Amino acid sequence: MTDRLVIAGREFSSRLIIGTGKYESYALNAEAAEAAGAEMVTVAVRRVNLTDRSKPLLVDYLDPKKYTYLPNTAGCFTAEEAIRTLRLAREAGGWRLVKLEVLADQKTLYPDMEETLRAAKLLIKEGFEVMVYCSDDPVYARKLEDVGCCAIMPLGSLIGSGLGILNPVNIRLIVEQSKVPVIVDAGVGTASDAAIAMELGCDGVLMNTAIAEAKDPVRMARAMKHAVIAGREAYLAGRMAKKRYADPSSPLAGLI
Amino acid sequence: MTDRLVIAGREFSSRLIIGTGKYESYALNAEAAEAAGAEMVTVAVRRVNLTDRSKPLLVDYLDPKKYTYLPNTAGCFTAEEAIRTLRLAREAGGWRLVKLEVLADQKTLYPDMEETLRAAKLLIKEGFEVMVYCSDDPVYARKLEDVGCCAIMPLGSLIGSGLGILNPVNIRLIVEQSKVPVIVDAGVGTASDAAIAMELGCDGVLMNTAIAEAKDPVRMARAMKHAVIAGREAYLAGRMAKKRYADPSSPLAGLI
Amino acid sequence: MTDRLVIAGREFSSRLIIGTGKYESYALNAEAAEAAGAEMVTVAVRRVNLTDRSKPLLVDYLDPKKYTYLPNTAGCFTAEEAIRTLRLAREAGGWRLVKLEVLADQKTLYPDMEETLRAAKLLIKEGFEVMVYCSDDPVYARKLEDVGCCAIMPLGSLIGSGLGILNPVNIRLIVEQSKVPVIVDAGVGTASDAAIAMELGCDGVLMNTAIAEAKDPVRMARAMKHAVIAGREAYLAGRMAKKRYADPSSPLAGLI
Amino acid sequence: MTDRLVIAGREFSSRLIIGTGKYESYALNAEAAEAAGAEMVTVAVRRVNLTDRSKPLLVDYLDPKKYTYLPNTAGCFTAEEAIRTLRLAREAGGWRLVKLEVLADQKTLYPDMEETLRAAKLLIKEGFEVMVYCSDDPVYARKLEDVGCCAIMPLGSLIGSGLGILNPVNIRLIVEQSKVPVIVDAGVGTASDAAIAMELGCDGVLMNTAIAEAKDPVRMARAMKHAVIAGREAYLAGRMAKKRYADPSSPLAGLI
Repeated sequence: MTDRLVIAGREFSSRLIIGTGKYESYALNAEAAEAAGAEMVTVAVRRVNLTDRSKPLLVDYLDPKKYTYLPNTAGCFTAEEAIRTLRLAREAGGWRLVKLEVLADQKTLYPDMEETLRAAKLLIKEGFEVMVYCSDDPVYARKLEDVGCCAIMPLGSLIGSGLGILNPVNIRLIVEQSKVPVIVDAGVGTASDAAIAMELGCDGVLMNTAIAEAKDPVRMARAMKHAVIAGREAYLAGRMAKKRYADPSSPLAGLI
Repeated sequence: MTDRLVIAGREFSSRLIIGTGKYESYALNAEAAEAAGAEMVTVAVRRVNLTDRSKPLLVDYLDPKKYTYLPNTAGCFTAEEAIRTLRLAREAGGWRLVKLEVLADQKTLYPDMEETLRAAKLLIKEGFEVMVYCSDDPVYARKLEDVGCCAIMPLGSLIGSGLGILNPVNIRLIVEQSKVPVIVDAGVGTASDAAIAMELGCDGVLMNTAIAEAKDPVRMARAMKHAVIAGREAYLAGRMAKKRYADPSSPLAGLI
Repeated sequence: MTDRLVIAGREFSSRLIIGTGKYESYALNAEAAEAAGAEMVTVAVRRVNLTDRSKPLLVDYLDPKKYTYLPNTAGCFTAEEAIRTLRLAREAGGWRLVKLEVLADQKTLYPDMEETLRAAKLLIKEGFEVMVYCSDDPVYARKLEDVGCCAIMPLGSLIGSGLGILNPVNIRLIVEQSKVPVIVDAGVGTASDAAIAMELGCDGVLMNTAIAEAKDPVRMARAMKHAVIAGREAYLAGRMAKKRYADPSSPLAGLI
Repeated sequence: MTDRLVIAGREFSSRLIIGTGKYESYALNAEAAEAAGAEMVTVAVRRVNLTDRSKPLLVDYLDPKKYTYLPNTAGCFTAEEAIRTLRLAREAGGWRLVKLEVLADQKTLYPDMEETLRAAKLLIKEGFEVMVYCSDDPVYARKLEDVGCCAIMPLGSLIGSGLGILNPVNIRLIVEQSKVPVIVDAGVGTASDAAIAMELGCDGVLMNTAIAEAKDPVRMARAMKHAVIAGREAYLAGRMAKKRYADPSSPLAGLI
């Protein structure tokens, strides 16, 4: 099949990106990644052990040759912190493709869009390829694309909340206007949430808690693999029209 | 894997039952069944050519050795009609496992539950194994199980409407009380609808229009195969709890 | 204004019926009824003290000359119990206009529609005017109207749940087909739920827990009075069409 | 009653602000304002005739002594345009209390938050009291409050769409954090939408199309008056808890 996700020139068969760091162990994380069929994992550079050989190393479980590592700036609250973090990542692992997130506060973990845009500009100037966590505001999504971000990653709902896609209209508007991939990042709680994101025309889904905090993370990872494929295929297949009656000749008066 | 759907002693790997009759051709129908990974197809005995060799025969495309045929009583508006139809099916093809539907009116195609219960009793007395299309009323679902139906098939929404699962609370109540399989029958419009049905704990999904009226029915059939697996696995995996804030320590005041 | 609710020949200005029995005191109940602008109250004949003068009497607080008393059969699980209860009510207070409910089980308090229909027929034969609590199944709603019930009272969701109108499509279908008043009975949790019921074209709303278990019942009663008027007026005013874009000339591709 | 809306030191009994300009005539507009019980109307300075005595004047129909005029910057796409517009308004009518909106594009009419924040700062420096139309991003809402805006006016959904409150979680987060009034501005389509906005704790609602494009605008205006009161009272009354079963002792397994 030729339906590939292309981000900054890299091709992926899988449209499901998973996190690292909330799992009980690197071994379980690796098992989940395998079950999810993921080809990309995102890594909180400040939190994950990437270099200290005296302790377990993520790279020993998730082979960087098999998985594209996507360093992220989780926990950064200013553009400067985020940029410093990603420079370190580039020095440590040569990573240029990165996920930028500049958070506003601990309570919501929502992005500070002003700082995010500022950081994106600076990072792109330094040669980074920036996938960017953002609010679901289509206007800001366009600004981020205009300055050169290579993927737009709007939140479905609060990070770690599992509330799903709260505003499908905004996600849809972002999909319609974007020329780079749109990847829902944050909010997915269960399989149908991921399917809905893909049915809206998104190019991929990134999730962490939904898998890591399921009772059986590996099984949920497998569920998510199927959900993303299901949603993608349904989007491409073109769904039936909704009807108001079993007999479609007499439409319900538009009120429901 | 040992996660099997068992209906009246028959075992199935697939939890997706598809229809026949709304497809452009039997060939397309067969291709969709293949893509859906279906092992059971439902057949409107009164509408589908099962015996006239001078015309195309469904059985030449969907091999009854490969697919379990589930004769249904689509278009029957009284218990007597339904019973007569299924007797003919038994004579013609030896089918004992059947899907009963007794409709109330053309506009909604909703079941007449009174007639449905009456027909179910009579059919079971005659030795049929009755899977039964019903409203999402948990009380009537229990009555149908009590008289011996081998699968409860509540509607998600109007037949052919694609409106999805309108009342998840009722479906959930039916799942909780039922000892026989619960299979959502009617209303699924796209992949996420099927996933939601399975996440509620249903044992399977039956659909017709969602696949047959998609722009690309075969692709949608494939989407549905993945959606049903996704929902089932997510249900078995046990989803994360929903949270009101990114920081779960300070719950939103219960209002949303 | 001439927008009146007419039930079995009786005219009401208010479309909000409230319960009795979950309030801390008869005095509070009366205050809530006043704030709600209610003209009808429903009374569980088996539970409320209507005749023992040695204890507080409901009628001393809610004057039967001001409020139409609607005896109900809360707690009855068979047609016979319900009929016996209402006969007693008729003997005690001369009440002929009654609310029938025949429940199926304690867990859901859902109506047993088979028993309900049977009881309705018997009561109507005995000369009662029967308002009937029922599921949201349009087919059974029609049967109840056909045997002569003078108001159809479908549930919005589980009694006492506050989950709102779970299936607006069914409520709408009942409204469209009914020639007698349709009054949502059960499920309303807050003001917007009541407004939604009325916007769907219902003729009235009956509620108990939403007011009685609010932190400030009298204030919530006032909220409900306004909500029912708001929903009714909005229904009669005819709402604007929904649009997919701020610029209505380019509709969103029908997917949301 | 002492439940007053206070904006920049001005007190209002009504929490419903209505628009001008989409009505068939100034006379109808005035009738709707009367029915809505509004005390404030918003006026697109660039579009409404405020000074040319040779044509009908809005002020002849909506008496500025009775209604607080709220000049807005509808149709402005840059901070500079908005500021220029409001300076003119101040010169023409002495209006200092204004509604700022800086739009991003014609298709969505969404605010450009970057320009909006910039304009807000400049206007406040010039002594304006700025009520500000904004996205439902709580982070930007806080920035706007921090620079001194006197009311935060997040959109419920697209201007003129009637889609209601698409993301109640965001509105709730804004309400929780704000010390100035929060007024939902855009998206309300019918009475229940307005009630929901108020139940979330908003201090008021601004609407235009929902009334102006109803079949009967005056009746819808009356509906909205009641809806806003209903939602406000329900919020203050404190709604009942939602329950998963009629018998609350056995909670549904958290999945619905």
